[in-house]
Parts: sequence; structure tokens; C-alpha cells
Amino acid sequence: MAKYTVKEEYDLENYKEVRLTGFNNNDPDLSNNLETRLAIIHLSSKDEKESKDDVNRTNNFILLSSMKSWLCRRIKKTCKKKLLYKRIPILAWLPQYRKEFIANDLVAGVTVGLTVIPQAIAYANVAGLPLQYGLYSSFMACFVYTILGSCKDVPVGPTAIAAILTRETLQKSHLGPDFAVLLTFVSGCISLLMGILQLGFLLDFISGPVSVGFTSAASIIIATSQMKDILGINISGGKFLEVWQMIFEKISDTRPWDTTLGIVCIIVLLLLRKAKDLPIMTRNVKMPTKIQLSLRKLIWLVSTARNILIVVICAVICWLLEIYLGSSPVILTGEVKAGLPNFHLPPFQSSTGNETYHFSDMVTELGSGCLVVPLLSLLETISIAKVFNDGNPIDATQEMLALGVCNVISSFVSSMPVSGGLSRGAVNHSSGVRTTFGGIYTGLLVLVSLQFLTPYLRYIPKAALAAVIIAAVVFMVEFHVIKPIWRTKKIDLVPAIVTFLCCLFVRLELGIVIGIGVNLLFLLYASARPSLRVQKATSINGCEYLVITPDRSLVFPSVEYVRAVISKQGTKQGVTVPIVIDSTHIQAVDFTAAKGVKNLIEDFSKRGQPLIFHNLKPSIIEIFRGVKPSSLKCSSSELELNDCLKEYSDISMTTISRY
Amino acid sequence: MAKYTVKEEYDLENYKEVRLTGFNNNDPDLSNNLETRLAIIHLSSKDEKESKDDVNRTNNFILLSSMKSWLCRRIKKTCKKKLLYKRIPILAWLPQYRKEFIANDLVAGVTVGLTVIPQAIAYANVAGLPLQYGLYSSFMACFVYTILGSCKDVPVGPTAIAAILTRETLQKSHLGPDFAVLLTFVSGCISLLMGILQLGFLLDFISGPVSVGFTSAASIIIATSQMKDILGINISGGKFLEVWQMIFEKISDTRPWDTTLGIVCIIVLLLLRKAKDLPIMTRNVKMPTKIQLSLRKLIWLVSTARNILIVVICAVICWLLEIYLGSSPVILTGEVKAGLPNFHLPPFQSSTGNETYHFSDMVTELGSGCLVVPLLSLLETISIAKVFNDGNPIDATQEMLALGVCNVISSFVSSMPVSGGLSRGAVNHSSGVRTTFGGIYTGLLVLVSLQFLTPYLRYIPKAALAAVIIAAVVFMVEFHVIKPIWRTKKIDLVPAIVTFLCCLFVRLELGIVIGIGVNLLFLLYASARPSLRVQKATSINGCEYLVITPDRSLVFPSVEYVRAVISKQGTKQGVTVPIVIDSTHIQAVDFTAAKGVKNLIEDFSKRGQPLIFHNLKPSIIEIFRGVKPSSLKCSSSELELNDCLKEYSDISMTTISRY
Repeated sequence: MAKYTVKEEYDLENYKEVRLTGFNNNDPDLSNNLETRLAIIHLSSKDEKESKDDVNRTNNFILLSSMKSWLCRRIKKTCKKKLLYKRIPILAWLPQYRKEFIANDLVAGVTVGLTVIPQAIAYANVAGLPLQYGLYSSFMACFVYTILGSCKDVPVGPTAIAAILTRETLQKSHLGPDFAVLLTFVSGCISLLMGILQLGFLLDFISGPVSVGFTSAASIIIATSQMKDILGINISGGKFLEVWQMIFEKISDTRPWDTTLGIVCIIVLLLLRKAKDLPIMTRNVKMPTKIQLSLRKLIWLVSTARNILIVVICAVICWLLEIYLGSSPVILTGEVKAGLPNFHLPPFQSSTGNETYHFSDMVTELGSGCLVVPLLSLLETISIAKVFNDGNPIDATQEMLALGVCNVISSFVSSMPVSGGLSRGAVNHSSGVRTTFGGIYTGLLVLVSLQFLTPYLRYIPKAALAAVIIAAVVFMVEFHVIKPIWRTKKIDLVPAIVTFLCCLFVRLELGIVIGIGVNLLFLLYASARPSLRVQKATSINGCEYLVITPDRSLVFPSVEYVRAVISKQGTKQGVTVPIVIDSTHIQAVDFTAAKGVKNLIEDFSKRGQPLIFHNLKPSIIEIFRGVKPSSLKCSSSELELNDCLKEYSDISMTTISRY
Repeated sequence: MAKYTVKEEYDLENYKEVRLTGFNNNDPDLSNNLETRLAIIHLSSKDEKESKDDVNRTNNFILLSSMKSWLCRRIKKTCKKKLLYKRIPILAWLPQYRKEFIANDLVAGVTVGLTVIPQAIAYANVAGLPLQYGLYSSFMACFVYTILGSCKDVPVGPTAIAAILTRETLQKSHLGPDFAVLLTFVSGCISLLMGILQLGFLLDFISGPVSVGFTSAASIIIATSQMKDILGINISGGKFLEVWQMIFEKISDTRPWDTTLGIVCIIVLLLLRKAKDLPIMTRNVKMPTKIQLSLRKLIWLVSTARNILIVVICAVICWLLEIYLGSSPVILTGEVKAGLPNFHLPPFQSSTGNETYHFSDMVTELGSGCLVVPLLSLLETISIAKVFNDGNPIDATQEMLALGVCNVISSFVSSMPVSGGLSRGAVNHSSGVRTTFGGIYTGLLVLVSLQFLTPYLRYIPKAALAAVIIAAVVFMVEFHVIKPIWRTKKIDLVPAIVTFLCCLFVRLELGIVIGIGVNLLFLLYASARPSLRVQKATSINGCEYLVITPDRSLVFPSVEYVRAVISKQGTKQGVTVPIVIDSTHIQAVDFTAAKGVKNLIEDFSKRGQPLIFHNLKPSIIEIFRGVKPSSLKCSSSELELNDCLKEYSDISMTTISRY
């Protein structure tokens, strides 16, 4: 019975197969025996590359090399076209675009558009920019992402996280919108660079707990920044604690109408959000009537477009009040620049007051924001893609390239930094989007509203916008994650809490850097101090020995510790007890580790104590041999180990009998 | 036949046993069978803590807890005395000091003294300090280390590495000796702090290749700094390239006598160093004559004390020349302050020119030197201790504390930073030192020379001192390490070369930091991108399945990559092929990894594809259960795996037959 084994190694970034080997186990006698068959499976699942049966290898060498060359030709042939299709995904899906998709994409695009317009205006407010900048950010990125995006559910545009990071970056020295646009350009370039250099793995270093801590702190800061609009008081922006201190100082200035409107809006928004869970939406009716169906659709639409409904209703009321009363009882957002933005180079030079900043000065002013904004934008975009991609792998490199180009081109139309937004991603997904073409409709809707609606933006009450933001970010505070972390790995709460507190009380960008640092320390400490299991055991011929099992690979930070523990065990047991190092988990070593092992071997041979490496990978034996240790005893099976031990006990027996 | 297994986990820093468990396997039937016995050994060497036989556990629980409480009492009883003996080692060895040790320690102490005096003067020159500072640094540390040192072979005093680092730290802004003394104090405090906080593991992050790169670059820089004295030309210190550029510019100013003296000295020193390898020293004469024995001793002494011999001979010649000719043909070191240093607080305030520096300003000026000097001093000291300790474990914490106190107290007598010196360590070892008491003799010898010899130091020719240094550091350039690195792990050459080049051409302290950073990137990349082995296999009942084996633990940077690879494999194989994840090497997971695995499980259950975790540790199953995945199929043995697979193939067969 022939068994065929395919062995491949993957390079995620390129998704290309690097190696392919096949071999057969043809011995029928072997296959008949259960135990042996299991052993074969075990063997073949261990290291056939390194197993010693060269006979099989030679037999298959010809097959192998012919397969290899065929594969090479094939890869070369498809590579160019495949790469082009991968990097410009529209080329792949547009020719297969079907009529049925149009309706789906249109509905999804328009719904996302209705969500993005009020959000964009509100996020511009969060970022501390004139409101039109929100809309400027919401169309170009959609068009670009349609061409380059690899995930249909990701709607690119302004987001809460990007907005608050922009605010924090600009706040330091009260910089103007020019800096926000330059930040967009620079973060686009950084994303693009990360995509080209395949640095996507950097994002993996932002762990779950750190990300939770950051998001929670960011949403609290965003909500805090909106409190002044809800209360109708005037506060110059500042740090989290300062803002709350000022709020309590000025609490007597609270404007009752603004507060009432704000709270009512928040409550209505939260209720509408909940509307999707109404019995009529979820009840398991096998054949719903037409009315039920339409009602469901209506509720879904109202719930999804709740932000724009609230904003429009509030604006209309204020407009009417202004017409009939002459003034509005609540604070309005005020004049907004009308019309489409010009298409021009991002501002590489800017004047604030009587100071002129050149490009390098501007980038210096933006500081760490230039790195933190693109990193977190990418993190958000890719995690949305993962959520909605039904477990299919995400092409992180393509997402980085796409988001990079989105930001760079958006910065030509005075956009603030854009990324994928989670809430709009959910809208997109539930609207049944089929391709990224939905973005075209979203972008067009935003363009229309920019052309015709900007004069009316001034009637939007500030409290309503604040309500839209607060109702959105309140679900980003992820205190519910504490419980599963506690259940799984309590120590992971440390980076989460450190990140949260540093983000809240120090600075948002700094907090996440500190959190990542703390988390990396954990990782490095673990690799520096592996756990070693030490056990006594007795071989079949009555030889007592000590088994020491390191739980991971030997690397430079850990080898001296491992050497010290093994040496200590060795001296403690006395020189007659052989030490067996179970090297099953030692999958890689480096030069420092090899040197350390050499020293260890020499310590033992000086003492005359046997030291056996059990289950050491042949490739690692090679590395150990590279530093030329005086001797290196290895055993690759229990039987071989027993033979080794027998040899030693024989020697020691002889030594004893000689005296 | 009973088997008793002791299981311990070690904490190196404290060398205390954390856990102790015992259990018996009493089944005689099992023990009779070879295969089963091996299986038992294997089982017991895997995870008895997590094996499910609770019966054994209960049986042993009483024994266990009584042992535990006994252990606790015992530990508490001995802890105080033991800790005191560990932290002040002299208390442990002085009562056991024997008469025979005196001769050994005296010879070793005096020989080290004869080596340290010329070296100290030369290293003061390397550090750019007045020569007496070298001697100031060479006695107090010896006394302190006698009391606190845990390794008899380590002679503490000024070293080439510490000296060049001091020079680089002070050079930036041409700071005076006050800063060097403060640097001693501050690095002492840092060492002490590292000892108290048990941060010894930080040193392990300086890998072999980085250390080689640094040492090689440092010795080249040191040799370069001495070239001007060999040539007798005047160059204001600077960077490596600048110095060589200036040397070539001023090559015509070379003073022939200085150059001749320097070169002759270097050649004589190298020859004397080689003298130890003379046939008479190594020839295997069974009964050497008395003359042979004395000759050997003489050659050994001359070879060991070669530095002081050269310096004294040169100084005497120059002194004579000055008396008889009125002036010396070579440049002399000039006036040196005579007498012992005062015992006073280190200079917490300093005036350079018309500027006054306070403590904080001074520390700011010293900058990264405050961290790099103690780290590298500790690294050197501990690596010497390891070299000469015959494989016995080093108490790194005690060494940090001892070196910390040495530096702090030395700073009261105007010392420059001190650490263990490799060359003097070798002298100490080959002189047959028995305890750290040898340091007392070394210290006394230095004190005597300070009291009586300083007036004569001015006659030492600069070229002779430079020769002493060059002849010493030339062996620190470790180009011979390139070959073994190439043989073992070629990629490890990258951190070595990066460190070497950065140290040489950027700055010494910065170079090692960059090198460590590059090396850590390798480590992090490896943990972010584990290698996954993918193989097809067939179960006993003919069910084809895919085995995927990650080679290391799942941690936050790697889990998304692992998930992507497994998902991709799953979709590629089709939903009918079960995926088995061989989790043998997954020894630890964190929260992010658990979440990733949960998502992975959900991806597979959505697709309806079976996913089995094979050989997963029970503690990790617990962690995975903490995030509440929809289902988690595990198998702990080949047989169980086969049952699992059979179940699936039965289901799929039924599904097929139903249609």
C-alpha cells in the first residue's frame, strides 16, 4: 500500500510553495502491523527530510527533480499575470462582474454612504478640523479602494481612531488642517512602504490585550472630547484629566437645551441600534407575510441609517427654528466651506500665524504620529477584513498597498487620514455587498452631498454630532474582554492595563508603544528563561538516569540559563548518573547556543559524567558539530538511548570491578 | 518494580526548588513488557502532572504534602544563614581557610599586582585620564571583591573595555576626570540595582556574535588610540576614521626613536607571551630536574610579568638618559601626582572651564555611558567567571552586587570604572589562586607602588605604554570566530558584522545597542513566523488527513500567521479532509493566541471541516477553553486520533450514502 507524502513550506507574504517532496513507503509487511504503521505515520510526521533512509530518497530523486522543474516553469508562467491580478484586484473580478451584483452593491454602497456622511462630519469634529474635511476624506479613498482593495467588506474612510490620533498629533502645537492633510500623505507613504517591504508582520506585534487597552482608552478619550458639546460649554482641548477637571469647573455654565438634545439623541441612537434585535427581526417565521418583510426592511434601514436620520432631523428643526425664531436655542456648527475640494498637491509647506513650516519641519511636528497613524489604520483595516472574510486568508500586503495609495491620493483632495471603519464594515456586510464596487456608489453619494449639501451643514447642532460619536464609541470600550483574559492567561492583563492607563493618562500614541514594549518584554523573558522539566528515570537494564526537557528552542538569551540548570543537576546527581537531554522541543539553535552546548559538553566530559542528547534533529546536530565539541552523544530512539545507557553502565561496572 | 519520579522546576536566580512531586507505577504486568515499559518511561517523561491517572495522585497526596511542609520548614530555617553566606561569601570561606592556601594566594596576588600596575597606568592613558587614576582604580576594588566576590579567579580592576568606554563617554564634550569618577559611581549603582532587582537575565541578551563584534571593534579602536604614542605624533582624539586620517596627514612628523621603541616593545611583549609555549614548558618530562623546574618557573614569571618588566626597563633607561643626556629621546608621560588618593565622596558637582555642572547635568552628559559601562563590565566579569569556574554555575546576582559595591566604594578613592579583566583572570588562575584573598595582596602592592613609585612614573615612555596596550588588545580581535559562525549559523554573522561596523564607524556604545537590537529582531521574527510542517497521512481505517506541525509555542505575533497557513491548507484540501494539528511543540500560549485558535476553530466549523488538536497539553486545553470556542477536538494518542478520524469518516460516509 503506497503512501504519498507532500511536504510544503509556506511563505505567507507571497503564498507561494517553496518546497515539494514526495516519497513512498512500499513495504507491505510493515503496513500490515498496526503498531508499525502508527510508527511510520509518526516517523513520517516527524522528519522524513532528515530520516536516514537514503534508498527511498534516491528512488524518488528523479520524480522529484522533474516535478520541481515543471513547477518552476509553471510558476514563472503564471507569476506575472497572477501578480498583476493580485496587486490590482479589479482586473480579476471586473470581467466576472454579473448583473445580479449591481443591486447588491448599489444598496450596500448607498447605505454605507448614508452612514459615512454624518460620521465623517462628526469625526472631522473629533479631529478638531473644519467639518468639510470629514466629507473631503470620504470619497477619493472609496474610488481607489474599489480598484486596489482585496476585501469587499472594507469601507475606507475617516474613522474614530484615525480622527482621535490626528487630534492628538495636531494638538501638541495647535496645528492647522494643512498638517492633517500632510499626515494623511505621510501615513499613506508609510503604509505603501510597509506593503512594498512586506513589513506586515510588524502588525502582529500589536497583541490582542494591547489593542483592547488602546481601543478602550481611545474611545474614552473620544467620548471625553465630545462632552463639552453635549453640555454646551466652552473648553480648550487638553489631556484627559485636564478636560474632566475643566468640565467640573465649568459645570455651572451648562446649557440646558444642548444637554437635553444631546442626551435625547444618544438615547434614540442607542434604541435604534437595538431595533435590529426586535422580535419581528429575529422571529423564526417560516413564511413571513409581505408586510412583515417590508417592515423588517424598513426597521433595518432606519436602524442602519440612524445617524443621518438624527442629524438631518436635528438640522431641519434648527433650520426651522432659525427661520421662525431668528435664532436656535442650541449651539450650531456654524459656517462650512461649500463645494468640492480642489485637486492639488498636499501642502508641503504651511504657515501658522507668522511662522512658516517647511516639509521637514512639518514632519518633525507630526512626530510619532507619522508612524502610529498608519500602523493603527492598517491594524484596524486588516482586522475588519479578517472579521468579515469568513476565515479566508487576508492578503495583508495588498491591504497595506491599497490603504497606502488611498491615503496618498486622498491627501490630494485635502483628506484627513483614512482607514477601514468597523461599524461601516458591518453595514456593508449586512447589506450584502458583493464586490468593492459598492465604494463607487458611496463615493458618488458623498460627492453629491459635498456639492449640494454643504450650505446646510451649518444647521447641524453640535450636541447632535457629539451624540452620534458617543453612541458609536461607547461600544468600543471593551471591558468585557477582561473576563476571558482572566480565564485564559492572567498575566496578559498586564499589557492590557498598562496600555489602557498609559493611553489615557500619558498620551495615546505613547501608550500603545509602551504597551507593545511591555508585551515584547514578556516574549523575550519567555525565550530567555525556558522551563526545564527534570525527572529521574530508569532504563530497561536498570541504569538510573536523569531526563531534562527544555520546552523550547535554544537561543542566545536562554542558553546560559539552560547550561547552568543542567550543570547544577549534573553535579547534584553525582558523576555516575547519566544526564539525558530530551531535545524534542529544540527546533532551532543559533551560534551562541551551539557555543553554550559545547561548553556544557566540556563541563560534563571534564567531570566524566555522561551527557546524551535524545531526539535531537539532524540539522541541529550539524550546527552543534560546527563549533567542534569534544564529543556529542546522540540517540534518536528509546532503544538507542537504552543502548547508550547500557554502554555507560557497563563502563562504570568495569571501573568498579577493576578496583 | 516501583519507579520513583522526582519532578522539579528551577528558578536559577534563587536556586530554590519550586515544586516536588512523586508517584509510583506499580503494575507488574506493565513492567514486564519491554514496549510498555518504554512507553511508561516516555509517558512519565512527558507530562505526568497532566496525565489523567488521578488514582496515583491521590495515593501520593499525603506523602507529598508532608514532604512539602517539611521542605518549607527546612528552607525557612536555612534561608537566613544561607542567604547571608551567599551574599557575603567571605563568611563562608574564611573559617575554612587553610595555611596551605596562603602561599598560593600570595603568589597569585603578587603576580596579578605586577600585571595590574602597568596595565592600570596604560588603561588610564586609554581612558584619557591622568595616569595616577589607573592606580587609584586598582586597590579598593580588590579589597571589596575579597569580601563580596563569589569567584576566586576574577581580579577586579581597570580594563581595556571599561577604559575605552570611559574615553568615548567623556570624549563627547571633553569632560574631566571628575566625570570618570562619577561614571564609576553611577555604574556601580546600576550594577547594584541590577543585582537587587535580579535583572541578570538582561546580560543574556548580548549574544556571542554581538559580543565578538563589539570586542573586536573596541580593541581596534583602542589600538588606534595608541598609534599616536607609538609614532610620537600629536593628534587630538576623535572618531576611528578621523584618527587614521590625521595619522596619515601627520605621518611626516613621526619621531623615529618613539616608533622604534614602540615596535621593539611590541615585538618583545609578543615574544615573551609566546615564551610559555616553549618546548621546555610543555615537554612531557616525567621527572624534570631541579634546573628544569626552576627554569620553567622563571620563564613563566618573566612571561607573566612581561608588562611590568618592559615598562620598568624602559623607564630606567629613560631615567638614566635624562640624568646623563639631560633629556630623553622619546616622549615621556610627564608629571604624575604622587601619593595615595583622598577618601571622599565622588564629585557630585564639577566645574569645567567656567561652567559648573550639577549632578543631574553630569549624568546627562554621561548619557548612555551610564548604562553601557555597567552592562559591559558585568558581561566581562561574568564571562571570565564562567571561563575559569570549571563548569560550576555562576551566581550572577552575587557578581552584580559585588561589582556594584566595588565600583561604588572605588569611586570614593577617585577610581575609573572597574570590572573583571580577562588577562589578569588568566594570570590569577594559572598562579593557582585558592580564594579571593589574593586580591588583598594585589591591593596592598598597588598601595605601596602608589605611595612610593608615583614620582618615577613620569619616566615611563609613552610608546612603551602604548606597546603594552597594543600587545594586549591585539588578541581581542576575534576574526577566527567567523569560521565557526559560518559553519553553524550563517545568519548570525549579520549581528556580528553590524555590531562591528557600527561600533567602529558610528560609536562604541551605540554600536552594541544597534547590534543587540538587530539580534532581537531575529528572535522576534522567529517567534512571529514559526515554521509549519505540512504532510498528508492516512489513518489505519483509510482516512486521509493532513498533519500540520508548528515548531514552537503560539504567541501573539505568530498566531495570525499560523491561522492563515492552516486555513489556507484546509481550503486547499477540501472540506472532507480532516486537519490534524500536531501540537507537540506548543508548550505555551497567550490570550491572543487562544483567540486566534478560537477563530480558527470557528472558520473550520463554518466550513464543516474537521479540525483535531493532537498531543495538546492539558494546561493549554484549559487556556483554549477559556475563550469558549464552539468546539475543541483533542486527541492525546495515536489510537485516540484514529478513533477521532474514524468517527469523521463514518459521518462523511453516512452523509454520502444519504444522498
